[in-house]
Order: sequence, then C-alpha cells, then structure tokens
Amino acid sequence: MSQPNPTRDARHRQRQDEIIAAGRRCFRQSGFHGASMAQLAAEARLSVGQIYRYFASKDAIIEEMVRRIIDARLQHIKETATADLPRLLAWRHALNEDDEALMKEVAAEATRNPVVARMMAEADHRMFTQACLNVKRDHPAMSDEQVRACVEVMAVLTEGTAWRRLTPQKASAERLYQLYQHINALLFTTEDP
Amino acid sequence: MSQPNPTRDARHRQRQDEIIAAGRRCFRQSGFHGASMAQLAAEARLSVGQIYRYFASKDAIIEEMVRRIIDARLQHIKETATADLPRLLAWRHALNEDDEALMKEVAAEATRNPVVARMMAEADHRMFTQACLNVKRDHPAMSDEQVRACVEVMAVLTEGTAWRRLTPQKASAERLYQLYQHINALLFTTEDP
Repeated sequence: MSQPNPTRDARHRQRQDEIIAAGRRCFRQSGFHGASMAQLAAEARLSVGQIYRYFASKDAIIEEMVRRIIDARLQHIKETATADLPRLLAWRHALNEDDEALMKEVAAEATRNPVVARMMAEADHRMFTQACLNVKRDHPAMSDEQVRACVEVMAVLTEGTAWRRLTPQKASAERLYQLYQHINALLFTTEDP
Repeated sequence: MSQPNPTRDARHRQRQDEIIAAGRRCFRQSGFHGASMAQLAAEARLSVGQIYRYFASKDAIIEEMVRRIIDARLQHIKETATADLPRLLAWRHALNEDDEALMKEVAAEATRNPVVARMMAEADHRMFTQACLNVKRDHPAMSDEQVRACVEVMAVLTEGTAWRRLTPQKASAERLYQLYQHINALLFTTEDP
C-alpha cells in the first residue's frame, strides 16, 4: 500500500482544480457537446492522456464541476435566513453568474443524457434536504409535509428567477418585493393552508 | 416581379417545416453547438446547399423554431384562465415536453450567444405582453404596475416549475395546490399589496 504523501496529494488536487477550471471555460464557450477532451486539454495546457489520469471521462469532469457548484449553493442555503428570500428574488440576486450559466448547460444536457440527469437529481436531493433542515430549524412547529411543500415553492421561485435573469426585468423590484414578502408570510405559516 | 404561385409557396412552406422538424431532432440529440448543418441536412434528406436556400444560417433555423414554440405558448396563454394556474403548477403540467427541452437548450446557448439571447428577450417580450393583456381582461381594476408584477411572479412560477420537472417531485401535489391557490388569490387582489 502506498503511504500518504502530502506533497503528491496537494499536487493532485491542484491539477484537478486546473482541469475543472479549464472545463468550465470550455463548457461556457462551446457547451458540453461542443467541447472536446482535446479542446479541454489544450485549455488546461495538458495532454489528453494526462487529463484521463485525473478524470475517466468528460461526464466525470462535469460531475465534479456540478458537485462543487452544489457545495457552494449548500453553503449559501445554510447561511441564508428564509426571511431574506423576498429581497433576493425581487432584485434577481445571482450567487454566481458563471455557475448559473453552467447549470443551464447541465439542464439542457440532462434532457438527453441520463448520466447528467442523475447528477441533477442528486444535486437537487442534496439542496432540497438542506433547505428542509433550515426551514425546520427556523419554524419547528411546521409539519414535515408542510416543510416539503414550502421548500418546493421556494425552489420554484429561486429557479424561475434564475431563468428569468436571461431576459430584461419588466416589473418594479419594489413591488415584487412586497408580493414576495406576502408569499413568504404565507409559506411559513404553521397553520394548515 | 414574380406572380404569387400557390403550389410553389406550399412546397416552400413544406420544406421549411421539414427542415425545422429535422433541426429539432438534431438539436435535441446533440445540442445547438454539437449539431452541424451537415448533420441537419442528412436528417432532412437534403443537401447542405438546399438548406441554405431556406435558411441563411443555423441561427436562422433556431430563430424560426423558437418563433413557432412561442406561437404555441401564446395560444396556450390566451386559452388559459389565470384561475387554472395553481393546478398546472402543482401537478407540473407540461404543454410540450420537447419544446421545453429545446427551450433549455436555447437558454444555455443564450448565455454565450448574443443572437440567441436576443431571440429569448423577444420571445419573453411577446409572452409577457400577452399575459398582461389576459390579466387586465380578467381583472380590469388592477393597475398596469400591479399587472406587470403579477405577470412576473406568474412567469417565475411557470419557468421554475418547468425547470424542476427535470428532478423528481418531493412534495405533495395536493398541498402545493393549496399553497398555489393562496398565492393566486394574493396576486390577483386589486388592493395594493
């Protein structure tokens, strides 16, 4: 068995980071289908053979990229109070525009590639579970079923807003803020709707 | 000047339809970037030269495809009462799953291609305007600013639900229906929120 080797492990992680960063640039520019492993290797200044020492396939690079995007989102969910949602929605807050664009690519690919569809389902499962824990923490009197419905509507509002960021805003953010505050009050009631 | 020729015009439209249909299949399979004009021509059983007699570029094919998808959606918006929205959202109704998958491709492409971003902005403008007319027709006492905010939230809910259809439903549709009915009541109030 090989001994742990801190220098080698750090070097390995750094190479992985470089490949993911190159992958993100290629995918943003050409899409998953359009970006070849050769293009990705050139962008990372590595040979195709070297890339395969770190990732078995393009799908594996996409999977690691999605895992990191979701880790950042989970951290954001943990740090965000449910009361902050109306403001984030009304002003169309983007956590990371590049991540959002890449997730649109993931969604398009998920409609034709079952491996990527499974990645999306896992990512959603992780975020949904974390969001449920947060809501339960802030509103302990809500039933599990109420929490799930509430998190689903929050997810719909968040994803819908991310989608609509692609086109110009046509309504007043101040007025949307008022509406979203009312919707929030409705979501976090402990009474049965 | 050439005379109108019904037979030739019908033939022209039929060819256009065939190219759009072939384009939809290629784009679904390989994405916009991945699908070449040669692949599209093979799928339509035409030469690349023949395709160019009908469409100046791949972007022109995408544009016509998007125009037709939006025409179908406009028709659906016209025929749908605002009161139907909670049911459509709670049970994640899809008007046309293929259209939805193609619009995810359009969204991904819009993040890197300004021509496609413009198509999306125009499509959204057409749908937003029609939805405002519908809300105003059903709720004449609402102010224009109220109508726009209300349509924006409806659009966020509709697009967010279309996005979330990519992953398994985790909340009860019956409970979501109740929540969406309350949200609808809130949206279509004529009182200032």
